[in-house]
Amino acid sequence: MAKKTARKKTTKAGTTSKTTAATRKTPRRSTRKKQPANEKIVALVDSVVADAAKKRDPSIVIPMRTLSNAHYNKARRIIEMGDRTATRNFFDLNKAKTFMQTVLIAGGCKKLIEEGKTVSIRGLYYLSKHTIPGTNEKTFNDQNESDPVIEDLEVALDALREELHVFADSRGSIAGNLTVTSRGDEIDLRRMGAGGMGIPSIVEPDVFTFKKCNAKFVLHVEKGTVWARFNEDKFWQKHNCILTHGSGQPPRGVRRLLHRMHDELGLPIYCLLDNDPWGYYIYSVIKQGSINLAFESKRMAVPDARFIGVRSKDYEEYGLSDDVKIAIDDKDIKRAKQILNYPWFKGKKDWEKEIAAMLKHGFKMEVESLLTKSISFVTETYVPQRLRHRGKWLD
Amino acid sequence: MAKKTARKKTTKAGTTSKTTAATRKTPRRSTRKKQPANEKIVALVDSVVADAAKKRDPSIVIPMRTLSNAHYNKARRIIEMGDRTATRNFFDLNKAKTFMQTVLIAGGCKKLIEEGKTVSIRGLYYLSKHTIPGTNEKTFNDQNESDPVIEDLEVALDALREELHVFADSRGSIAGNLTVTSRGDEIDLRRMGAGGMGIPSIVEPDVFTFKKCNAKFVLHVEKGTVWARFNEDKFWQKHNCILTHGSGQPPRGVRRLLHRMHDELGLPIYCLLDNDPWGYYIYSVIKQGSINLAFESKRMAVPDARFIGVRSKDYEEYGLSDDVKIAIDDKDIKRAKQILNYPWFKGKKDWEKEIAAMLKHGFKMEVESLLTKSISFVTETYVPQRLRHRGKWLD
Repeated sequence: MAKKTARKKTTKAGTTSKTTAATRKTPRRSTRKKQPANEKIVALVDSVVADAAKKRDPSIVIPMRTLSNAHYNKARRIIEMGDRTATRNFFDLNKAKTFMQTVLIAGGCKKLIEEGKTVSIRGLYYLSKHTIPGTNEKTFNDQNESDPVIEDLEVALDALREELHVFADSRGSIAGNLTVTSRGDEIDLRRMGAGGMGIPSIVEPDVFTFKKCNAKFVLHVEKGTVWARFNEDKFWQKHNCILTHGSGQPPRGVRRLLHRMHDELGLPIYCLLDNDPWGYYIYSVIKQGSINLAFESKRMAVPDARFIGVRSKDYEEYGLSDDVKIAIDDKDIKRAKQILNYPWFKGKKDWEKEIAAMLKHGFKMEVESLLTKSISFVTETYVPQRLRHRGKWLD
Repeated sequence: MAKKTARKKTTKAGTTSKTTAATRKTPRRSTRKKQPANEKIVALVDSVVADAAKKRDPSIVIPMRTLSNAHYNKARRIIEMGDRTATRNFFDLNKAKTFMQTVLIAGGCKKLIEEGKTVSIRGLYYLSKHTIPGTNEKTFNDQNESDPVIEDLEVALDALREELHVFADSRGSIAGNLTVTSRGDEIDLRRMGAGGMGIPSIVEPDVFTFKKCNAKFVLHVEKGTVWARFNEDKFWQKHNCILTHGSGQPPRGVRRLLHRMHDELGLPIYCLLDNDPWGYYIYSVIKQGSINLAFESKRMAVPDARFIGVRSKDYEEYGLSDDVKIAIDDKDIKRAKQILNYPWFKGKKDWEKEIAAMLKHGFKMEVESLLTKSISFVTETYVPQRLRHRGKWLD
């Protein structure tokens, strides 16, 4: 099993992300001392109160979450947020409402942290919504108003949403040679039957820890149906690994867990995704982070992740039949060309060849299409061969 | 804890559904002896071969899966399929292709059963797809052609899709006072942390069995985010129950599991769903089955399920604020009226009042809106009160 790309780390913290040889060259975006999220909230609000006491216009500084303020850090190999900020003033008619909303959401999060409870982003909307006394004005008219404020607060405090005790709907499953604890329960992921453990939305080190791990790598697949094939064939037993999926584009919990398994357990992450623009994009997000959540990349992205398939050349190399072909349409072509232009794909010869080959084929292929060879071809032949031959991966 | 509606059953079989006092009056739709699915496939294909040997036109008889062949059985309180059938002949130009497809899918399922493997419906499509030698004809052009044939085979063989080793993508989680085995692993659902166990798509008794159960009931909630609130507050510990959710409309695995927990463990099933037409519909499917899968009702539906909330009158009764209101639109109104006309809602005074009250309000309410009272209002006050007062449920 090729494992050279992994960095063996046994530290427990996980909230302070590790540096690699490549990243040591560049300073971290935030060098602020790591502080509990509720203390950060208090500090934020204290400064508002101090402003008011001094009869200054209270304000909150929020880093800008725009495309123009996101860039690809070549040395760290992740998408990062730039340094531009916007100031939200209380005595500015255009900003007074979002200022008030920011303070309300901050208050809601502080309450959650203090009570040791978590809610969904929809829950936090309901928790923070009320009618301003003496008016018909709502603090929030709908969730579209509260969601961006939650993200504002994440970046302003340099705290993950999960540290603010807010979760997204969870998706994805895990099974394999690993024991974890989740909210005090010790869970042996070797004995999870057909369903696996649902990956929680919040997998921060204070509520989710790693215990005994004898796995050598993580195989992340795109869909639950493919995961089920691997789990049923006991792939993780035979190959001593951990199996995950994220029900398509992996949600934050799955991405954070992949990051932590790589970072803290030193496990390489191999991705088995569809041979189509959506598969490429999923890989891109796992590896470099996403533009709209650029501020999270450093705690979510896995720049060392590898794409092991499905490759365009598999069609010829494995003598696949025409039955695997799904014709691409204009949308696929447009999307593929966009992805080729991402700064983190651009100039990578093997990725350029890979995507060009898909476009030249004129068809895309799903992982499940390998069933046309035989039921367990993907678990018994395809992936084992891929794992043995480093040259067959894409970076 | 009110438990009068539950029937204490300790039999293990589960595949032969039990009869209740109400259902004993009517004969079961199928009185065929229960036979393993692979034997049924062989019998089906044997009859085709026998026809051919006798130089008769080979044919397969398939019960009709149409709206006109589905009806509500008042005594059994489930949606059932009628007795009308269609015959698929080999020597009929219009039917030869689906005849061939039916035999191919049957062959694919037999292979899966013999190898002890399962695939998704997409996987079975790939497994059964090939080019007919000497032509450019595909056996299946896309999955839209194979999915209905799988359902045809289910009804023709009187075997659940899951017994044919075909699964759907799994959704939904479970945790609580129950131990289960899944594919040989014993899993204590009392120690599942924040994520719970993913409910597998296939929970048939040969691969999924119940062990120690000290729960007194099942609380089924609509969404994963609400489930997380109950799990975090250890509701199932305090109230000695099992918690499930189905990520919206529960998939087959979740419905089958609810049915089995009710039927084999004698547990009442209480549903906590949104106060909107979609919530009513979810309840309807859990309780009576669905029209398009009418042939499965007897093994999936839970006619004794109870709707404990959210009720329209909660708005007044709990003094909820305007912040919980979500305005209904024309689509909601149309859907609500359709549901009122379902034969299984029609004539139920309390349901008619319930839906009329929602329409009169002009707004709908989500379970999560109870957060406007307090974070744990739903787990500490609302549901415990509902469970104590039988009169507050809807049937």
